[in-house]
Amino acid sequence: MSTEIKPTTTARISAEVIGTFILVFGGVGTAVLAGAHVGFLGIALAFGLTVVVGVYAFGPVSGGHFNPAITIGLATAGRFPWKDVLGYIIAQIIGGALASTLLFVIATDREGADLGNFASNGYGQASPDGYGLLAVILIEVTLTAVFLFVIIGTTSTRATVAFAPLAIGLTLTLIHLIAIPVSNTSVNPARSIAAAIYGGGESLMQLWVFLIS
Amino acid sequence: MSTEIKPTTTARISAEVIGTFILVFGGVGTAVLAGAHVGFLGIALAFGLTVVVGVYAFGPVSGGHFNPAITIGLATAGRFPWKDVLGYIIAQIIGGALASTLLFVIATDREGADLGNFASNGYGQASPDGYGLLAVILIEVTLTAVFLFVIIGTTSTRATVAFAPLAIGLTLTLIHLIAIPVSNTSVNPARSIAAAIYGGGESLMQLWVFLIS
Amino acid sequence: MSTEIKPTTTARISAEVIGTFILVFGGVGTAVLAGAHVGFLGIALAFGLTVVVGVYAFGPVSGGHFNPAITIGLATAGRFPWKDVLGYIIAQIIGGALASTLLFVIATDREGADLGNFASNGYGQASPDGYGLLAVILIEVTLTAVFLFVIIGTTSTRATVAFAPLAIGLTLTLIHLIAIPVSNTSVNPARSIAAAIYGGGESLMQLWVFLIS
Amino acid sequence: MSTEIKPTTTARISAEVIGTFILVFGGVGTAVLAGAHVGFLGIALAFGLTVVVGVYAFGPVSGGHFNPAITIGLATAGRFPWKDVLGYIIAQIIGGALASTLLFVIATDREGADLGNFASNGYGQASPDGYGLLAVILIEVTLTAVFLFVIIGTTSTRATVAFAPLAIGLTLTLIHLIAIPVSNTSVNPARSIAAAIYGGGESLMQLWVFLIS
Repeated sequence: MSTEIKPTTTARISAEVIGTFILVFGGVGTAVLAGAHVGFLGIALAFGLTVVVGVYAFGPVSGGHFNPAITIGLATAGRFPWKDVLGYIIAQIIGGALASTLLFVIATDREGADLGNFASNGYGQASPDGYGLLAVILIEVTLTAVFLFVIIGTTSTRATVAFAPLAIGLTLTLIHLIAIPVSNTSVNPARSIAAAIYGGGESLMQLWVFLIS
Repeated sequence: MSTEIKPTTTARISAEVIGTFILVFGGVGTAVLAGAHVGFLGIALAFGLTVVVGVYAFGPVSGGHFNPAITIGLATAGRFPWKDVLGYIIAQIIGGALASTLLFVIATDREGADLGNFASNGYGQASPDGYGLLAVILIEVTLTAVFLFVIIGTTSTRATVAFAPLAIGLTLTLIHLIAIPVSNTSVNPARSIAAAIYGGGESLMQLWVFLIS
Repeated sequence: MSTEIKPTTTARISAEVIGTFILVFGGVGTAVLAGAHVGFLGIALAFGLTVVVGVYAFGPVSGGHFNPAITIGLATAGRFPWKDVLGYIIAQIIGGALASTLLFVIATDREGADLGNFASNGYGQASPDGYGLLAVILIEVTLTAVFLFVIIGTTSTRATVAFAPLAIGLTLTLIHLIAIPVSNTSVNPARSIAAAIYGGGESLMQLWVFLIS
Repeated sequence: MSTEIKPTTTARISAEVIGTFILVFGGVGTAVLAGAHVGFLGIALAFGLTVVVGVYAFGPVSGGHFNPAITIGLATAGRFPWKDVLGYIIAQIIGGALASTLLFVIATDREGADLGNFASNGYGQASPDGYGLLAVILIEVTLTAVFLFVIIGTTSTRATVAFAPLAIGLTLTLIHLIAIPVSNTSVNPARSIAAAIYGGGESLMQLWVFLIS
């Protein structure tokens, strides 16, 4: 995924802002606006598609992380320079927060709008099906590791690198199919932060779990 | 997406007519004929697939716009000649209207057929979940911009240009997953016009929103 | 879609038998065995996937028609030799009938099995949502034409020919999303014949519609 | 699917462990944790996606079998060395059992957890829709053969080999769409073993069917 001309820092940071915006606007947006219609299957599909299309469109510019856990994971694996990590994470948090803010404005322009916890991640009472903290940490850690394995695996081989965005996005759909009932599925601190801002007190108090796991 | 022999103007206009026909016959058709069976998830999938298959089949001929907002957006970005814009838009409106007319004939050949607003776009009472004009304009403008960003991004890089029709079509699925409950999802004036013709008075009166946003 | 060594006639005929077997076993099978669980959306997905995987697996051998309407359509368009048409059609009918026969054995090995019309195509009382003969003929003719347009379009351009099986299969998913409520969706006489054998009297009496349209 | 440097035996075995872990954690995990939300359609999608992403990520290392039936089938077809078969099968069983063990820990960390038969395969009372032993054996043998045909077909042609992981994974989705109501769908002894460990007595007693068919 290289272009002839190396993208500027501004282009790369912008790509991460826009890509994370699309991820949160598409994924959390489907959950908040359409979850009652399309169910967990539709939400899982939406999260995956945000990454499929985001990485095809912006991957050539920034690498298409849209997720602090990916940025840190790739740096740890020696696949991304540590000096660029902080800038990427800030861009991702900003992109996500912009998306959830716009979503909040849209979602409240309706008679009797009830936003619930704004699709925030959580455990115990805040878990969709009431799973405990242990289950939430185990599934988030496991699935974040799976996500990283797939990203590193699909971008290592010359033969199928053009399929990497598809495979990576479908991995996120898979991850959501498994884990929405447990934790509402994070595997992405920027997504957790974006939702928690409008999710109310418990969402913010439980946010630490999704920042560390 | 180039062919060895440059397509004629007639071929390009025909491709836009047929492609927009497929978009409206497939997307609005699924909503009108099968919406009660497949839900918003099925409708979102159908709209996206019309574009995936339409752009793979006809993209090499016309570029595969099937949407006045795309044609104008690409012209604004310097990626499509302004002199061809009007012809494309007329072709798209004709293709969409042919599709909704044929759909209307099919949909009414049934005992007790109730076409509702024929899957027209709308706000307030005409929004599936009762969203207001502000929400509708915000979501339509945002998602049209996302659509254009993805189209420009995926068709700029040599490495993954063969995946562009897939990514662009899946973007339309994503857009519908988010926005059907809000506006019934337009992001495409030709689709809005095609449905509004058979959607009745309020659909036609609210059509302006989806032509400008 | 060419192989270095030209496939033998036996290999090509076998590929059409197996491919049409998979189409009917997968599509009609999902409808008969799992339709109550996965709905029209699941059935539409299943029919499309049979073609995606069938054409990737067997397209290099036989071209991957699995459908008399495609074979005749491609011959009419000068893309397939007329002298091979009859052999292909017989292979397709045999493959489909083998699949529905095996399905019948499986589906009846259950307490209180009720096979209904075995997912046969039909109009009037035999249409899932009660559509008339006119609607059924219009939608079948239109969608068969769309199917052929996409097949010819996606296999004409060198750039994206590797995506043709995906695009063609997803077209069949789209076609089913639109038309299951109207006609149970045929666009494929071999599929109609295969189901009608076990669908009972009315299915056989209405079969002519799906052989000519 | 070759890399410049031939992967070591350790790398290949590890890839089979991780890939089968993902298959069971994703497929059985969706069934156990989210089946009540996403239905058989969601479960079918999840199983297929585990293979799509697993084969794109780890196929270049181990070939991406994740299934004793595939390993033995490919060896029988002369496409995989018999001397490596046992190691692969052990790796697959270990990967699957690790996944179902972790799933069991997660699934029980919830008030009033009821794991049922842990998505085990079965016939008669243990078949989701009560199908008999004959139906279960017929459908498992047929679909395992289809799976092998598609794998061999899609990996034989140079032109579309990059699409093989997608086609193979979507085949598994198709197989599940058809057969979940009949047998809960195995076509993979490692998956059957992994689930049966936590599925209780009847699941273990019926396991032989899914090891031989």
